[in-house]
Amino acid sequence: MDVTTELYPRERVGRVREATAKAGLGAVLLTPGPDLRYVTGYDAHQLERLTCLVVPASGEPFMVVPRLELPAAEASPAGRLGIEFVPWDETDDPYALTARRLPQGLDRVGLADRMWAVMALRFRAAMPGAEQVAAGGVLRELRMRKSAAEVEALREAGAAIDRVHRRVPEFLRAGRTEREVGRDIADAIIAEGHATVDFVIVGSGPNGANPHAELSDRVIGPGEPVVVDIGGTMPSGYCSDSTRNYCVGEPPADYRAYHAVLEEAQRVSCEAVRPGVTPEAVDAAARDVIAAAGLGEHFFHRTGHGIGLESHEEPYIVAGNTEPLEAGMAFSVEPGIYPGPHGARIEDIVVCTRDGFEPMNVVDHGLFVVD
Amino acid sequence: MDVTTELYPRERVGRVREATAKAGLGAVLLTPGPDLRYVTGYDAHQLERLTCLVVPASGEPFMVVPRLELPAAEASPAGRLGIEFVPWDETDDPYALTARRLPQGLDRVGLADRMWAVMALRFRAAMPGAEQVAAGGVLRELRMRKSAAEVEALREAGAAIDRVHRRVPEFLRAGRTEREVGRDIADAIIAEGHATVDFVIVGSGPNGANPHAELSDRVIGPGEPVVVDIGGTMPSGYCSDSTRNYCVGEPPADYRAYHAVLEEAQRVSCEAVRPGVTPEAVDAAARDVIAAAGLGEHFFHRTGHGIGLESHEEPYIVAGNTEPLEAGMAFSVEPGIYPGPHGARIEDIVVCTRDGFEPMNVVDHGLFVVD
Repeated sequence: MDVTTELYPRERVGRVREATAKAGLGAVLLTPGPDLRYVTGYDAHQLERLTCLVVPASGEPFMVVPRLELPAAEASPAGRLGIEFVPWDETDDPYALTARRLPQGLDRVGLADRMWAVMALRFRAAMPGAEQVAAGGVLRELRMRKSAAEVEALREAGAAIDRVHRRVPEFLRAGRTEREVGRDIADAIIAEGHATVDFVIVGSGPNGANPHAELSDRVIGPGEPVVVDIGGTMPSGYCSDSTRNYCVGEPPADYRAYHAVLEEAQRVSCEAVRPGVTPEAVDAAARDVIAAAGLGEHFFHRTGHGIGLESHEEPYIVAGNTEPLEAGMAFSVEPGIYPGPHGARIEDIVVCTRDGFEPMNVVDHGLFVVD
Repeated sequence: MDVTTELYPRERVGRVREATAKAGLGAVLLTPGPDLRYVTGYDAHQLERLTCLVVPASGEPFMVVPRLELPAAEASPAGRLGIEFVPWDETDDPYALTARRLPQGLDRVGLADRMWAVMALRFRAAMPGAEQVAAGGVLRELRMRKSAAEVEALREAGAAIDRVHRRVPEFLRAGRTEREVGRDIADAIIAEGHATVDFVIVGSGPNGANPHAELSDRVIGPGEPVVVDIGGTMPSGYCSDSTRNYCVGEPPADYRAYHAVLEEAQRVSCEAVRPGVTPEAVDAAARDVIAAAGLGEHFFHRTGHGIGLESHEEPYIVAGNTEPLEAGMAFSVEPGIYPGPHGARIEDIVVCTRDGFEPMNVVDHGLFVVD
């Protein structure tokens, strides 16, 4: 896949301009991060020196860039967009520079959700009359609905993390620590094609009952269940995220029982996905199965999160989110059951299709017993 | 060194409270990032779910934490501080929760410099009467002056990156690409004790004339100078950053000549460091040597940046910064000369001492010719 032209099409800047105008904003200001990458393909470093794509509702977009970063910006996919680069020097004030180039008297400007607060406050001082709002409200409408090329990038990410899960049994042994296993998994995440490792959870025994366990020096014992939740970012910029449960030797009987409930809950939740269904209904589908088995209190987190250029983005699959799903939306379906002294979670990334869903992860969902 | 007690002393929260009151702020709000780590030792993940240490000018500090992160927060160094943790559930509004727990009618609150704008805007909506300012103005006074334990952590970071520079000649060969060499250097950064690789610049030939060159597939040719600027973060949280120049075989004669000027400029600039001297004078010391050699136009960036829990922080060694140096301030001294078709930069981290400076990097400054 030609990442630059297919994944980051040239017309996106224009779409953002239209969405900016439609939202009643005078401009959006995008500092390095997923929004800037989405619009331009430029994977810029977030630095204390301001880099900012400015997309006015009317007028031409431009990018304010520290002179030191100008070669990188020009060589990046942003260089092919025909946007003017406005370099600034070490003793310039890039916030005032940006304000001067924008139409005067703007009422409202949108800021990249992940812009640093210190930059937002400097823009406020440079444009005291402009109300600041989150640009996420503009960009989410575009970013939430993945293009065919984005879905393909998520498929590649899913296949890469699936290959890692298939290798996990090589690494898991009683007597090894979570950290040792985690290091091998991290190496495999890179070896299987990711550019960066985003997280590695190896929750053994009681640590598996903590959904966000950190890697520890705990030694994995025989017969212990292990929750493995892993993800990375591909060179395309798109993320993977998948969870499976393993056991080093024969698991406790109750674990097999509630893992079977979880498999059912995760399957039913995925099958609830189709256009028009609400995220909260997808959440409820998993929750109902688990509650019916008398385990409802042990599933205490949302069922999922959107994924794309960020591992967590909209839409969130959570009670209260009633905005109907549409084809192209991509998110995790990851119910968990954590009764202690162990826990389990099964997670796939799925994409809502015209008539249902397509899973990005296809590794068997069953409990994998490592001999 | 016992990282938790020495590097992140318990009394820091109290110092931040005093500084908050002194700055006329009602509270500071610290989301995950270097400020939160500085105050508590907690290296929290920056997530879309709000984690926030709230330090009111009067009253007890507390930390708002997603319930999923509560075990990690309690197990972190923040757990020993006696701060109340306020967990919130998936369908709660943590911004409103924070506002309710603060004294009503606060005039001004400080936000962590790196807080995401989307969070700053949600805090604004939850506390519409409170003017938001950058908490960096409060925290910089503390963070800029390193404790003895912090200087020791920077020494360890400096020694680790020095060991990497000593290994660079193993990796550099004509016929290898920058990316291949960079990958070996990245592995060495980890092998020599860093927890993460922050950046690896291997600027060969013309790429050396770009101070912020990205790793490329350019093949390094015989007789080509190579700028190697590398850094990482140690398990302590403290950063390394050091630049040396290499040549694969005999360098061009003009390169030797301007590298000698650069060595002199970097040495003179370091020797200018002592309490009471301004950063702009340290900058000028390097600049004057380079200008006197007729090369002034080829040194177009500031001379340095502070370093600690961030690779770039205050104080910046730049024209216009007239706030006198004090003992304990730590920063890079890194003049460069980029006349093309190659360039050079020499960078050490130095700490201002009571009567001068201590370098954290002691690898020979000379051009290293790889046979």
